[in-house]
Amino acid sequence: MNEVIKLLQSRCSVRKFTEQVIPQDVIEQLIICGQAAATSSFIQACTVIQVEDASKRNLLVDLAGGQAYVASAATFLVFCADMNRHKLVCDMHNSEMLSGYTEQFITATVDVALFAQNVMTAAQSLGIEGVYIGGIRNNIAEVSDLLKLPALVYPVFGMCLGYPAQEPDTKPRLPLSVVLKKDRYNDDNDTKTISEYDKQVREYYRSRTGGTKEQTWSEQIAGMLVKETRPHMKTYLKDRGFVLK
Amino acid sequence: MNEVIKLLQSRCSVRKFTEQVIPQDVIEQLIICGQAAATSSFIQACTVIQVEDASKRNLLVDLAGGQAYVASAATFLVFCADMNRHKLVCDMHNSEMLSGYTEQFITATVDVALFAQNVMTAAQSLGIEGVYIGGIRNNIAEVSDLLKLPALVYPVFGMCLGYPAQEPDTKPRLPLSVVLKKDRYNDDNDTKTISEYDKQVREYYRSRTGGTKEQTWSEQIAGMLVKETRPHMKTYLKDRGFVLK
Repeated sequence: MNEVIKLLQSRCSVRKFTEQVIPQDVIEQLIICGQAAATSSFIQACTVIQVEDASKRNLLVDLAGGQAYVASAATFLVFCADMNRHKLVCDMHNSEMLSGYTEQFITATVDVALFAQNVMTAAQSLGIEGVYIGGIRNNIAEVSDLLKLPALVYPVFGMCLGYPAQEPDTKPRLPLSVVLKKDRYNDDNDTKTISEYDKQVREYYRSRTGGTKEQTWSEQIAGMLVKETRPHMKTYLKDRGFVLK
Repeated sequence: MNEVIKLLQSRCSVRKFTEQVIPQDVIEQLIICGQAAATSSFIQACTVIQVEDASKRNLLVDLAGGQAYVASAATFLVFCADMNRHKLVCDMHNSEMLSGYTEQFITATVDVALFAQNVMTAAQSLGIEGVYIGGIRNNIAEVSDLLKLPALVYPVFGMCLGYPAQEPDTKPRLPLSVVLKKDRYNDDNDTKTISEYDKQVREYYRSRTGGTKEQTWSEQIAGMLVKETRPHMKTYLKDRGFVLK
């Protein structure tokens, strides 16, 4: 195992940060790493909003469901899927852009995620840690208004970055046989394997919380999936022109 | 700039590979790197199908629009967004899973992309290169049948990996001012900046093709977006239970 693999395998979400700021030239190097990720048909559909303004950061804490680290992290980035850029480009050539395809929604969203994961890895290589903030989709229309996002741009997630003031343990992942299949999908043994894994997750929560949380993975997931999940997303995406035709 | 940042910034898509195989224990280390990526609410929604069977690889070449390297790469991985796993887990607890939310579609798709980008970075750290294959969505229903994907599983993209037999130049990316914004979205100067960048892209294609290709970025994008883009995707996703309610 080389250093890069060690770095990737030891990743944890970090939510507590020191006061140390991240210099702007470092942020820019991270973004250049993001840009270097693969991009579907060269569409380059990711735009990052770096939120420095303190009042906006405080509003984003609330909009993301009360996650205080959105304000306390040294840097907060909002990763947007951006097809407004392609509209500009089509206008430059007087051509009529066809938009609203599910396929475009997928390629733009994937572009953003590949980009962001490079930013995260680059950050970690410099001793900076962070956490993704899917919570900005709790109130996605308000977040979009706050950041003045035009049509055809949607904020996929945020990312807190900073120098860590905590060292969480890595969270155990599903056994390899569940996530890696040979030649065809086959879930015959997955329920059994997940039951074994459940014990590991329970132990992880138990040791981390001093016994106050004992949930297994399957309990956590099953408990979550009986509830509606941000049902406003479809209407929002239609309103922003990311309609799924 | 440290070695990780250099590695990320020097990435190129590689489509020609030597005969050298990638040992299975290396593949497994790459997958473990993928698993270590962040996962929205711990859903762990990525399943990878490693396609070894030669006849399946040949079929996938055609299904992905004739990309021969899908067969010639040492390894071909299909990254799937998998919520069948969550159905299993809900069944374990006799709970009724609510599915089909756009939000779930986003979180599962993002999970897959974060996972895959870690796999790509880990591979590159070992001198292995590769390319993402969005082309598997050209005939996504046939690909799903070939890999026996059940409902609630969709193949987001493929990935060819192998030891490189070519060294492509890195493709110039959009100027930083276009992709990184401060506090709010603002595209006032983007058209002008993109026009400058267009010259760079034209020069890149010119030098790479000995003058036979001279396209700018904006020409390429505008030319692409006047055409329909995999219009079958929405129906396919409905059929697979990834309905967007």
